Amino acid sequence: MIDVRGYAARTAKSRLAPFTFSRREVGRQDILIGIRYCGICHSDVHQARDEWGGSIFPMVPGHEIVGVVERVGASVKQFKVGQMVGVGCFVDSCRTCPQCKKGQEQYCEGHLSFTYNGKERDGITPTYGGYSTKLVVDQRYVLRIPKQLRPEEAAPLLCAGITAYSPLRHWGVGKTHRLAVVGLGGLGHMAVKIGKALGAHVTVLSHSGKKRHDAKRLGATDFFKTSDPKTFTTLAKRFDFILDTVSAPHDLDAQLELLKTDGTMILVGVPDKPAQLGAFPLILKRRRLVGSLIGGIQETQEMLDFCAKHKCGADVEVIPIQQLNEAYDRLVRGDVRYRFVIDMSSLT
Amino acid sequence: MIDVRGYAARTAKSRLAPFTFSRREVGRQDILIGIRYCGICHSDVHQARDEWGGSIFPMVPGHEIVGVVERVGASVKQFKVGQMVGVGCFVDSCRTCPQCKKGQEQYCEGHLSFTYNGKERDGITPTYGGYSTKLVVDQRYVLRIPKQLRPEEAAPLLCAGITAYSPLRHWGVGKTHRLAVVGLGGLGHMAVKIGKALGAHVTVLSHSGKKRHDAKRLGATDFFKTSDPKTFTTLAKRFDFILDTVSAPHDLDAQLELLKTDGTMILVGVPDKPAQLGAFPLILKRRRLVGSLIGGIQETQEMLDFCAKHKCGADVEVIPIQQLNEAYDRLVRGDVRYRFVIDMSSLT
Repeated sequence: MIDVRGYAARTAKSRLAPFTFSRREVGRQDILIGIRYCGICHSDVHQARDEWGGSIFPMVPGHEIVGVVERVGASVKQFKVGQMVGVGCFVDSCRTCPQCKKGQEQYCEGHLSFTYNGKERDGITPTYGGYSTKLVVDQRYVLRIPKQLRPEEAAPLLCAGITAYSPLRHWGVGKTHRLAVVGLGGLGHMAVKIGKALGAHVTVLSHSGKKRHDAKRLGATDFFKTSDPKTFTTLAKRFDFILDTVSAPHDLDAQLELLKTDGTMILVGVPDKPAQLGAFPLILKRRRLVGSLIGGIQETQEMLDFCAKHKCGADVEVIPIQQLNEAYDRLVRGDVRYRFVIDMSSLT
Repeated sequence: MIDVRGYAARTAKSRLAPFTFSRREVGRQDILIGIRYCGICHSDVHQARDEWGGSIFPMVPGHEIVGVVERVGASVKQFKVGQMVGVGCFVDSCRTCPQCKKGQEQYCEGHLSFTYNGKERDGITPTYGGYSTKLVVDQRYVLRIPKQLRPEEAAPLLCAGITAYSPLRHWGVGKTHRLAVVGLGGLGHMAVKIGKALGAHVTVLSHSGKKRHDAKRLGATDFFKTSDPKTFTTLAKRFDFILDTVSAPHDLDAQLELLKTDGTMILVGVPDKPAQLGAFPLILKRRRLVGSLIGGIQETQEMLDFCAKHKCGADVEVIPIQQLNEAYDRLVRGDVRYRFVIDMSSLT
């Protein structure tokens, strides 16, 4: 077994604190990663505080992991010691269902092993995430980090980046399209960068006007406040696509009215309460309301290469792990531009 | 002007009663139709009772109209006196917007003239529907009724038929697909017939078990009760498509869980209250919730020809117009299999 140090939540109410645990030995297909950086995703907070239910404690969160290969198993040919690699939201899947075979492991119909707050292939052993010094992962679930991306700005791509990229590609967003991004947080700021890089005309919809300047800097052409009712008349039937990243309850019907006929609104944020939905906004213009969950391994690699090519690293605030609990509180307040990333050397 | 007799609602609270009014003279592009049959759509009841708001009174409902050409304007070449024709939910549109040009007049971005409870092209003159003896309509909005269909069984196709057909075609439902039809009413029974004719494996989901036998007779392979919670575990992740025809509030989240990954639930019924919607059922399997509104003129003709070829007329109960108010009450109770159609000869 390999000794690892990390930070864990012991209960839904406790603050995260130092925690020592073990990883499995490096098997033939495995890679031992020395973690350098780990992003803090809003879902880390939801799960550490058991806001979605079913959390497994103690919990070592973290699924935006970038590090260096320290050792490889006998059958690993694609990765070498010293190489910069990444791990995202899952570390295993059944590999045999139609979704796994299509490279859409995130929708695995068998057992999907989330990187933390999940179970290994055996269905028993809990998984521990990236707020830690080392990680052992099967090579099938490891990504190459392109040299053009700094490791700390690459880390948030493993969740926020792919969560924005996958639906934009799946729905074919491109040069002829008007895209609205609702909510300018970790996810939203990546959606703006990627949408812009795909050639779309990007508009940011944000509750207040505070992030207007940032939105433009990130690549948006337009910016509107959702707290101003005029926004919803001005922008009526304007967009081909809306990517909604907000994970607090908000008015979906009003947003749907901003779509053209046959327009698509993509939900990627998960509010902790259900929304109200009328049938008319969908029916009268044949609109679509769809969901999307992270992305598959091959698609995540494609996203990393795309972001390297288009210089779309995340905007990050790097912190030592000792500031983790303060960062959680600031994240919930929306006080980060746009992703906290833990410098794991602070744990050494 | 042309004198016409019909039945109208004078207010949202009044029963429908005889009403005399005038239609415009037959213009160069117009067709004068002697109405033979008119279906009673659930939306007639909603609008006559002002349950969606904004109703225009007096109101002559009816948008499932079949009749005989009695006179044609000088420029009408496609239709002849004596021919059986139909008129659906709209009698004019702007004709110049992108949607009209695509043959999707139902999503017209200019002025769409609904067959009743709407306004003519001038934006002032109210439209009166098919619970009447005669109708004058521009030839562009008139459909040919194939000889293989009896006129009374063709009438409901003009709304219920096209409302089912259009989304099934738009989303490409066919031989490889499992389709669930929720609600076995006027719309639902047409969805079962058309879904079956398209080659799909059709399952009916109905509140009670009363219509089990009918569902099978109409072409469904399976039937399940939504009042039985076991239905939702048995059928989890079963369907490629769900066509939801229910216009009473019901649990959309539970139904979404019956879709496979990338499955689509199509809403065509309009409950009078908003539904609750959680984000997880959409996100975790990349499911789609979409709306659809009737269909365009060309598509409606295609549907009529399809239904003629596949012997998909509606199951109807023909009534004299004097039973209209009783029929409304029975319709609201779900006591009709599956569409009331008024025999307009009863008005003579």
